Amino acid sequence: MTEHGTLYGLGVGPGDPELLTLKAHRILQSAPVIAYPAPATGDGGGDSMARAIAAPHIPADRTEIAILTPMTPGPFPANDVYDRYAAEIGDHLAAGRDVALLCEGDPFLYGSFMYVFDRLAERFPCEVVPGVSSLGACAARAGAPLVSRNQVLTIVPAPLPEDDLRRRLAETDAAAVMKVGRHLTKVRNVLSDLGRLDGAWYVERATMEAETVKPLAEVDLETAPYFSMILVRHADAGGR
Amino acid sequence: MTEHGTLYGLGVGPGDPELLTLKAHRILQSAPVIAYPAPATGDGGGDSMARAIAAPHIPADRTEIAILTPMTPGPFPANDVYDRYAAEIGDHLAAGRDVALLCEGDPFLYGSFMYVFDRLAERFPCEVVPGVSSLGACAARAGAPLVSRNQVLTIVPAPLPEDDLRRRLAETDAAAVMKVGRHLTKVRNVLSDLGRLDGAWYVERATMEAETVKPLAEVDLETAPYFSMILVRHADAGGR
Repeated sequence: MTEHGTLYGLGVGPGDPELLTLKAHRILQSAPVIAYPAPATGDGGGDSMARAIAAPHIPADRTEIAILTPMTPGPFPANDVYDRYAAEIGDHLAAGRDVALLCEGDPFLYGSFMYVFDRLAERFPCEVVPGVSSLGACAARAGAPLVSRNQVLTIVPAPLPEDDLRRRLAETDAAAVMKVGRHLTKVRNVLSDLGRLDGAWYVERATMEAETVKPLAEVDLETAPYFSMILVRHADAGGR
Repeated sequence: MTEHGTLYGLGVGPGDPELLTLKAHRILQSAPVIAYPAPATGDGGGDSMARAIAAPHIPADRTEIAILTPMTPGPFPANDVYDRYAAEIGDHLAAGRDVALLCEGDPFLYGSFMYVFDRLAERFPCEVVPGVSSLGACAARAGAPLVSRNQVLTIVPAPLPEDDLRRRLAETDAAAVMKVGRHLTKVRNVLSDLGRLDGAWYVERATMEAETVKPLAEVDLETAPYFSMILVRHADAGGR
């Protein structure tokens, strides 16, 4: 009987290909199968951010699997999709081939890796390789230490209803608001009401070439890209 | 006039030396001065965790600066210490020498790097290199995805007063409780009262050789090491 391959959940970091870990780099050199999420579009698959980040480190002639997932907002519709790709990945593992599944940022922080992990981790060896999260990357690029000592940091998805968002942001020392996108105006209004617009940073595509870093008060967009984050700092957190 | 050196805040990750980023590794090869925090002890300095993590990647014959900081709990006593070390580091930068300051995990998440950064970033070029945080590392090692979709994640320092801790943990979808140490019993009692002991993980020294990963309900210690974390997962976060 063939020994099973290992499923690696590889965090590839926030965008700069140099922010891969040495470990992720090593595994990429040896895994014969490389998988990554990509947005499903009408005409097949869109570009995979995770693959783009890792691209300089992916050897030629690997078997690649683009996991095409619907990017629609709202209730989670993709169970069938993950069942199907988990079966395809499972076939490689059963045949003894390691599979590296690339994950933007860190695999277990708001990533889609967990859906594949849930379907395969009981049957195959699985190793999760943590990566640099967009949280640390955005703080680094804004030059904005987020929290120190005994301060509380809350990670809040921007799509939450406005009342919920307001309550969460009112009661925390510092916050990172993720998935800003079309919720930018709502988030800015809430922070303005709370008197926390000053000291808030807007970071778009952190560590990538097209990066934008600005005080939130100076941002006049109505909609932000999906890969954007708002950092709300504690007044005493230090930094500029 | 000599061109100033750059101060690098280098995240070295949670413990496994292979979890340094390619970028941190490159900068370590070229920076002539390497600084790191170390606990001040009665007889000089204790071991620096950050230096131990990066040790396999530090070339011989570098100038090294151990930033000896008092590890006492309670109000923050170390302003004089940081003034003094910032001056020493500033002398190297003014002379044109790059300084790499090693930071456990990520520089801007509960790190001490911000105290040096605050004192030097206005006068010298400064670059923060984000690292893998203990948050992602603990989740990876527990095989426990923390949050997905629109769930809220709260990072809560264990030294908070019990009532405050209870309130924060009651209202969040998922949590990471940091700096557990002598507060382990308090945290466990609060989670038990809230009915959230099941699904909570205890992770000590994540990704290091002496790592321990256990369901919190099976931990019978009264005191944990400083480098330990408790993860409280959302019931719907997936994973095992």
